Amino acid sequence: MLKPLILQTDFGTADGAVSAMYGVAYSVCPELRISDLTHDIPQYNIWEASYRLIQTVNYWPAGSVFVSVVDPGVGSTRRSIAVKTVEGQYIITPDNGTLTHVKRMCGIAEAREIDETVNRLPNSGESYTFHGRDIYAYTGARLAAGVIDFEQIGPEIEVSSVIELPVVDAVLKEEKVSGTIDVLDVRFGSLWTNIPRELFLKTGVKHGGRVEITIENSTRTLYKNILVYAKSFADVYVGEPLVYVNSLDNMAVAINQGSFARAYNIGTGTSWKITMRKAPRVIYE
Amino acid sequence: MLKPLILQTDFGTADGAVSAMYGVAYSVCPELRISDLTHDIPQYNIWEASYRLIQTVNYWPAGSVFVSVVDPGVGSTRRSIAVKTVEGQYIITPDNGTLTHVKRMCGIAEAREIDETVNRLPNSGESYTFHGRDIYAYTGARLAAGVIDFEQIGPEIEVSSVIELPVVDAVLKEEKVSGTIDVLDVRFGSLWTNIPRELFLKTGVKHGGRVEITIENSTRTLYKNILVYAKSFADVYVGEPLVYVNSLDNMAVAINQGSFARAYNIGTGTSWKITMRKAPRVIYE
Amino acid sequence: MLKPLILQTDFGTADGAVSAMYGVAYSVCPELRISDLTHDIPQYNIWEASYRLIQTVNYWPAGSVFVSVVDPGVGSTRRSIAVKTVEGQYIITPDNGTLTHVKRMCGIAEAREIDETVNRLPNSGESYTFHGRDIYAYTGARLAAGVIDFEQIGPEIEVSSVIELPVVDAVLKEEKVSGTIDVLDVRFGSLWTNIPRELFLKTGVKHGGRVEITIENSTRTLYKNILVYAKSFADVYVGEPLVYVNSLDNMAVAINQGSFARAYNIGTGTSWKITMRKAPRVIYE
Repeated sequence: MLKPLILQTDFGTADGAVSAMYGVAYSVCPELRISDLTHDIPQYNIWEASYRLIQTVNYWPAGSVFVSVVDPGVGSTRRSIAVKTVEGQYIITPDNGTLTHVKRMCGIAEAREIDETVNRLPNSGESYTFHGRDIYAYTGARLAAGVIDFEQIGPEIEVSSVIELPVVDAVLKEEKVSGTIDVLDVRFGSLWTNIPRELFLKTGVKHGGRVEITIENSTRTLYKNILVYAKSFADVYVGEPLVYVNSLDNMAVAINQGSFARAYNIGTGTSWKITMRKAPRVIYE
Repeated sequence: MLKPLILQTDFGTADGAVSAMYGVAYSVCPELRISDLTHDIPQYNIWEASYRLIQTVNYWPAGSVFVSVVDPGVGSTRRSIAVKTVEGQYIITPDNGTLTHVKRMCGIAEAREIDETVNRLPNSGESYTFHGRDIYAYTGARLAAGVIDFEQIGPEIEVSSVIELPVVDAVLKEEKVSGTIDVLDVRFGSLWTNIPRELFLKTGVKHGGRVEITIENSTRTLYKNILVYAKSFADVYVGEPLVYVNSLDNMAVAINQGSFARAYNIGTGTSWKITMRKAPRVIYE
Repeated sequence: MLKPLILQTDFGTADGAVSAMYGVAYSVCPELRISDLTHDIPQYNIWEASYRLIQTVNYWPAGSVFVSVVDPGVGSTRRSIAVKTVEGQYIITPDNGTLTHVKRMCGIAEAREIDETVNRLPNSGESYTFHGRDIYAYTGARLAAGVIDFEQIGPEIEVSSVIELPVVDAVLKEEKVSGTIDVLDVRFGSLWTNIPRELFLKTGVKHGGRVEITIENSTRTLYKNILVYAKSFADVYVGEPLVYVNSLDNMAVAINQGSFARAYNIGTGTSWKITMRKAPRVIYE
């Protein structure tokens, strides 16, 4: 049976590069179901590509084939790989850290290196820069269509050899939980942290309770305030900040109908640290 | 038979939220035809979500299922509803005014409140903020795939109870027709008014004739000039303004190959008033 | 058998215009596979529409149906046409230069003028501005679905009569190859020239060799420097400029992980001239 094929790149959709990938895939099998994760990954931003995969992959049925092409090393000796997650989805990508979060949070059951001598669009040998189309989309389409099976991708490699970007774990210490701001919810300006809900709950805060939030980067403290831990945005006033659980079951911070990131100039990455603790009870409560 | 599933949100496509909706829908039925109305509704802008529905819904076959998620009240007590239009398309949405124009211009034949105890992605109970994925996409996919029928959405509700945003009607008075600027054709900068062609024609203007246009907001008059009522943009010079009939059979104002909205700083909403009348005949004509 | 339908416009995707085209196409045949080339062609930019077609068309299987609507002359007497390429894809478009590159580089095997009296969405007679939906998408869908065949589009016309925008050819003279900067790779800021690889190689430069590049517009010289002719971006340092072969087998210029176009304010069109020659050997090499 045909499996869904899902494409992610940093190509944008203003030119024909993505449509050429679709054309190659439909040439393999005109019956495929192809859709887009996003093509607006900031150029060369492997971290964000990794994050968008973890945000979606488990909502897709087992057997679904993701192709992710954010590939600053195209043409270098970096490997092209395909992995099978523990839940059974496939991801095809350059081995450059794109699988960081999937490896840590979903788990990779099996990994293979793409044998590019057989898994390459026929007559594309002169193109050194369009692996997205000639290798990744082509191989992804053949896997999704059942033309090849996972074993035919190429030789098995150690899962432990799949490259990971450096990640800092959230920690609980003296009733404070600390982590990093991993990524923004681009359009709504919310901060997505790496603090799991389970860890946060050990601070003793319950829905409706108050949380003291501190946000620092390597230079200074940018925000220190007390917020409500809300079930959803509707629990707070328009314009009020809140702490909530995002779709990855991690803690997030937002302003209801505003942009927290823009309001306080918050960035992302391992130098952006966030700390949460149960707020001290105040007299007027 | 499978019906088309069409998604509209204010999520943008830069992250994985829309693809997660696709994944949930394909998990319901891998054979579905899913496409996008738009995901670039300005955040929380219910009015524009309503307008984009009326702009498209009647071009889709009966039985098509629209899912529209612009939902500033997610997590509040606002209802989740599904309606069937007079022409037979379905729309699933929070009941917050998103159906304003469809209710007025297409007509709603039947409305039901979604019973979220049964129509919800299994094991999604801890998520209070992702109803777009867990309730709306899931239910829309099940309806489009024929897994459930309309009656299984939940209990019937009065069509009259479906929430409408305030709308001002265009009026004809002393040979002048007045209305509001409802929305912009974003990319081309044209003004879409709420003045129906039929009403406009009562001013006696014919194709090729001249129209006096006045545009005011609550503060001042921003534009007063005489324009041609053209069949199409090709009837006027490049850079020349014109009055024409848009795809909703309403009157619109544009500059051929320019942006009328940007040229004169025109906005939208009920405080933006436009008046049209047959231009007085001028000597040199 | 159903053929893929691919849509390209300058409509953007922020409103409902593209979704209305999808709706019309699915009304013709709910089983169609529809996808987007791009809807972000700059408004009225026929040259770029032509370029995006040549960038993609040959990656699609024979029989695929492209609909391209960049149509500043909508409502004028410009013809609506459909062509069959030498490789067997179909393209439906206003006859305004959109087929310039396809005609020159792929070749057109056969051309027909659309008979709009029969190939038009029923009951769309009052709309003079939405030919994208009422004529092009409707006719493309009927062709892709096999409801009509190519002969039923309308009367055959001379291929030579299909309108072409003015194009300047690259030339080799005294070991220098000169051409124009045709288009930008929007997102990565690379320059795509009209100089074919085969012509460039006559300058005697080999992979890893050095090329002297000069870029001029009608006013002045904007860039003159010596670059590496690289197989791919990975052959140069991050931030280093390079010359490479693009996906059209033409020469291109880029900065690895930077934007060449933005760095030096380079534009596109026939007034933007680029010259390449084998770099003189320098002492310290």
